[in-house]
Amino acid sequence: MAREKSGKKISLQTVERMSLYRKVLEDLHRDGVANVYSHQLAELVRVSPAQLRRDLASFGSFGNISKGYPVYQLILTISRLFGTDTLQNVALIGAGNLGRALLFYRGFEERGFHIAVVFDIDAEKIGRVFAGRRCHHIQDLEAVLPDFGVAMAILACGAQNLQSLVDRLGRAGIRSILNFVPRQIHAVAGMNVENVDFSAKMEKLSFLNRYGTALEFEI
Amino acid sequence: MAREKSGKKISLQTVERMSLYRKVLEDLHRDGVANVYSHQLAELVRVSPAQLRRDLASFGSFGNISKGYPVYQLILTISRLFGTDTLQNVALIGAGNLGRALLFYRGFEERGFHIAVVFDIDAEKIGRVFAGRRCHHIQDLEAVLPDFGVAMAILACGAQNLQSLVDRLGRAGIRSILNFVPRQIHAVAGMNVENVDFSAKMEKLSFLNRYGTALEFEI
Repeated sequence: MAREKSGKKISLQTVERMSLYRKVLEDLHRDGVANVYSHQLAELVRVSPAQLRRDLASFGSFGNISKGYPVYQLILTISRLFGTDTLQNVALIGAGNLGRALLFYRGFEERGFHIAVVFDIDAEKIGRVFAGRRCHHIQDLEAVLPDFGVAMAILACGAQNLQSLVDRLGRAGIRSILNFVPRQIHAVAGMNVENVDFSAKMEKLSFLNRYGTALEFEI
Repeated sequence: MAREKSGKKISLQTVERMSLYRKVLEDLHRDGVANVYSHQLAELVRVSPAQLRRDLASFGSFGNISKGYPVYQLILTISRLFGTDTLQNVALIGAGNLGRALLFYRGFEERGFHIAVVFDIDAEKIGRVFAGRRCHHIQDLEAVLPDFGVAMAILACGAQNLQSLVDRLGRAGIRSILNFVPRQIHAVAGMNVENVDFSAKMEKLSFLNRYGTALEFEI
């Protein structure tokens, strides 16, 4: 549980649902929708209206019985909660196929994250500029990182010496890691790690194909 | 809850933990470890030993008090549960940066999934071969798909007309979708959808950076 400034507690499940609300609200905003009723938004995100109202109530009362929630204001409020109302610099470790795809992935910038600096170990890549970002050698991590004021890193590198890399990132001031490498890593003290494991999701889908259980929506 | 052949029920949370057990077991197998004790495996995956034993017990008793669990046999058993003990063909929709990175992503094949066929709408890409897989026009989906015997599709395409694409995939026999497009899609009857939303994970990490809550391990 985390504590909001007001002193209210927010569970990580609520935080995850907030991402989902935001995503759907962005769709509505793109479509020119100014206000949305809680039951409509709840249906779009596939949660109960009561759950949605409870989640949004943790940030004060937004809803208006006659007009619903103001879409754009709600997007801004959720962005402020995430700290993504201003663009944050992020470091990318690994400029291979996946790393380069992430550099071109517009979804990060749209949601407030800017990959500002790239590291690799491949001599062919060092010094090159990918999508406007220069690639540095990983041995220069400690020297280069402070220039970019980053607290978050994305791991899209090889699995070799992965844990020692994580430890180095921790010492260099990285507090959050989004890990695409299909290996188990251990966060150093005060660090948070989120793993993106494509194959685990495929395994779950394959299991569901075999056993036929319908999966409720989830993020 | 899904029902295993024996009639036992397995929750989706157990299925997700099974992916994690398998990943760690693969690491051990690579390192030449033949047997592992439940408390060791539990520590590596950061679950309680009781939870681990309970999860594995749903598949019959593997453990041996003196020698622990046989690593390779356990990998095979979990693969059979997922239906990934033989390679499954998968369709990829979208041969952009992310799609091409997924084509080169070795993690899929290692875990039993083979991207066998690729679709796009970009005339420049149609007919080209990416990492050994030919790219077809999405308008030929219904004609081409049956040749590959696929039940799973990966969406790494643009957001335009996404839901109608999902509906078409459902009619063409696709039962599972791994969705990388940061838009809300609705599964057709009998279809399962898993979303991979990188930015939602970043938002969660950013939230945790701000509010300082340590995150327990999760897949």
